[in-house]
Amino acid sequence: MAQIGDEVKNKQVVFRDYVSGFPKESDFIITSSTIRLKLPQASNAVLLKILYLSCDPYMRMLMESRSAPNSYSPGSLLHGFGVAKVLESAHSDFNEGELVWGILKWEEYSVVEEPGKLFKIHHTDVPLSYYTGILGMPGITAYFGFHDICSPKKGEYVFVSAASGAVGQLVGQLAKLMGCYVVGSAGSKEKIELLKNKFGFDEVFNYKEERDLDAALKRCFPEGIDIYFENVGGKTLDAVLLNMRPHGRIAVCGMISQYNLDQMEGVHNLLHLVLQRIRMEGFSAPDYFHLYANFLEAMLPYIKEGKIKYVEDTVHGLESGPAALIGLFSGRNIGKQVVAISTE
Amino acid sequence: MAQIGDEVKNKQVVFRDYVSGFPKESDFIITSSTIRLKLPQASNAVLLKILYLSCDPYMRMLMESRSAPNSYSPGSLLHGFGVAKVLESAHSDFNEGELVWGILKWEEYSVVEEPGKLFKIHHTDVPLSYYTGILGMPGITAYFGFHDICSPKKGEYVFVSAASGAVGQLVGQLAKLMGCYVVGSAGSKEKIELLKNKFGFDEVFNYKEERDLDAALKRCFPEGIDIYFENVGGKTLDAVLLNMRPHGRIAVCGMISQYNLDQMEGVHNLLHLVLQRIRMEGFSAPDYFHLYANFLEAMLPYIKEGKIKYVEDTVHGLESGPAALIGLFSGRNIGKQVVAISTE
Ligand SMILES: NC(=O)c1ccc[n+]([C@@H]2O[C@H](COP(=O)([O-])OP(=O)(O)OC[C@H]3O[C@@H](n4cnc5c(N)ncnc54)[C@H](OP(=O)(O)O)[C@@H]3O)[C@@H](O)[C@H]2O)c1
Ligand SMILES: NC(=O)c1ccc[n+]([C@@H]2O[C@H](COP(=O)([O-])OP(=O)(O)OC[C@H]3O[C@@H](n4cnc5c(N)ncnc54)[C@H](OP(=O)(O)O)[C@@H]3O)[C@@H](O)[C@H]2O)c1
Repeated sequence: MAQIGDEVKNKQVVFRDYVSGFPKESDFIITSSTIRLKLPQASNAVLLKILYLSCDPYMRMLMESRSAPNSYSPGSLLHGFGVAKVLESAHSDFNEGELVWGILKWEEYSVVEEPGKLFKIHHTDVPLSYYTGILGMPGITAYFGFHDICSPKKGEYVFVSAASGAVGQLVGQLAKLMGCYVVGSAGSKEKIELLKNKFGFDEVFNYKEERDLDAALKRCFPEGIDIYFENVGGKTLDAVLLNMRPHGRIAVCGMISQYNLDQMEGVHNLLHLVLQRIRMEGFSAPDYFHLYANFLEAMLPYIKEGKIKYVEDTVHGLESGPAALIGLFSGRNIGKQVVAISTE
Repeated sequence: MAQIGDEVKNKQVVFRDYVSGFPKESDFIITSSTIRLKLPQASNAVLLKILYLSCDPYMRMLMESRSAPNSYSPGSLLHGFGVAKVLESAHSDFNEGELVWGILKWEEYSVVEEPGKLFKIHHTDVPLSYYTGILGMPGITAYFGFHDICSPKKGEYVFVSAASGAVGQLVGQLAKLMGCYVVGSAGSKEKIELLKNKFGFDEVFNYKEERDLDAALKRCFPEGIDIYFENVGGKTLDAVLLNMRPHGRIAVCGMISQYNLDQMEGVHNLLHLVLQRIRMEGFSAPDYFHLYANFLEAMLPYIKEGKIKYVEDTVHGLESGPAALIGLFSGRNIGKQVVAISTE
């Protein structure tokens, strides 16, 4: 095992250049540099060993030049959520050996100059990778997106798209715990089975096999939809709008079907917002990060009592990262897409 | 003046048949029948003399076969909001000589079998036609749509489309009273001048003369938009979405630019709901009718103190009704479109 002071190899993933259309593996470069495991004096930094990196759909938006100045810089390292162990700390809040999650660079060892935004991990009786998913950003997204934005009530009819994913599988299970009737859509037979048999969705459909999404929704929701947890956008949203019940709510979490398009598809049925008096609301996980302690208090018992299950899809090694990341946009991942970097 | 028991002429407007595309005058038939001014015994009805009828954009939706069973029945009388005087009442809640507003048929004299949904008019020190506008359905729409759905705060940036209309002129003035910065768009020079000089909008533009709505909004809102009061839909909504500030609100009141289209235009920029965490919410005036007393308490003083002005566009006689109604969709009306039937 590498020691403080050692000079070690450090694999990294470099973002080559702005992307248009679907990202390809060649949009990323795997490089191998070296790093001395020693913090400069008089810094506030921490030196981390990365354990897990997370593949999240929002990363696609940072690959656009039009997202500048927030986008990834061509030639610079990719970054995203991840879990790491503190090897050395020059920051008074962090100590060697502690575990953290937060935004990290895609490399094996990493110096974080301003570690103030990292969350400390106190609960280690769950898989550490969970802090990229159910106990990390996607978990916060599902929990607050559902409870705060959807205003759910027992017995309501809930639809979740991209339902087997990092966020969707949680929303479905939270809705079931709330006593809702829950329908999910996903893009493969295997995912559909997972929804029914593992996560307890009441009804499911494979959107790729439905010629008419409106008809599929009418079949699953003869009474209409009270809550739509929107992960995909485009045609699915248009079909949902036709099936909303009065005073329904649409939590706009994301629109993954649109992220790789140069011009986003038009949504035609927005007049139904008036006809049915619907609230449609976008939200963003970081707005809820200050409530992380409350979130853990709710979520940890669900995990420990087996009331919520979490499925991950793990690839190994940084060099597998780019393919896993771009796989999100073809539905390659079954559950939360994780890149395991090191188990130490 | 006609007396109870007389048989009198009764002009009526008949809805010919379902409409597609823009409605035409020939979609309505002016007929003249006779009516005996006497209620049948043992009824609960009231006999009304109609004073004012209101032209409202929602009436276009009732001309569609796809709105059935709520649409107008081909061959039957048109109906809409209006103001009337009670000539005779068989209903214990209503007395001869009282004034009412509510949904009425488009005719000169009318028997309302179930008058329970009519509102009584107690305040007659304002023009009675106001009960089709500022003190009727459009007023309720503006007041609750703005205060309840937009959650306005002093100093916020507010945009109103169809700003000189029945609803829009009120929203703009309510927003000014709230201390907001208010921009309105409308479709003619005359309307634009009204917005600036009569209603006190801070900034205005003629959307028909702007080649690039996004640029027009950026010019009027260098800091972006907090609140959009949506009356028109389509391209305006798409441009607004690009200019919303974080945590902005869009009250979806209506989308008049879409009512005459067979397929509604696609809206492409909904992803901004997530990026800026925007709430977009449809609402409907009748949901607030139970709060009518509170509404009057707020609105009457504004009128009497001259804090809110109201512009009406009045045509005379039932036979002028159809042209006035369809004129809403070409912007013929300047202010609230009223049809004056009788002044007695
Ligand atoms: N607002 C926030 O703060 C926030 C936070 C986290 C995530 N999000 C959003 O939430 C959504 C889900 O994220 P996640 O992390 O849970 O991802 P995920 O569902 O684990 O992975 C993405 C999945 O999206 C589906 N997909 C890909 N392309 C699609 C298309 N064209 N049409 C329909 N489905 C498609 C695929 O599943 P199928 O096989 O079912 O197609 C794929 O597996 C995304 O839109 C993401 O941007 C928002
Ligand atoms: N949710 C509810 O309960 C409720 C209640 C009342 C009204 N509404 C809605 O509120 C909106 C305004 O109603 P209102 O009664 O105040 O009508 P209004 O503004 O008095 O009259 C309609 C105006 O719409 C504008 N217009 C027509 N076609 C247009 C187009 N293609 N693009 C842009 N503007 C167009 C015209 O003005 P320009 O000259 O400026 O184009 C026209 O004068 C409508 O969408 C209506 O359906 C909703």
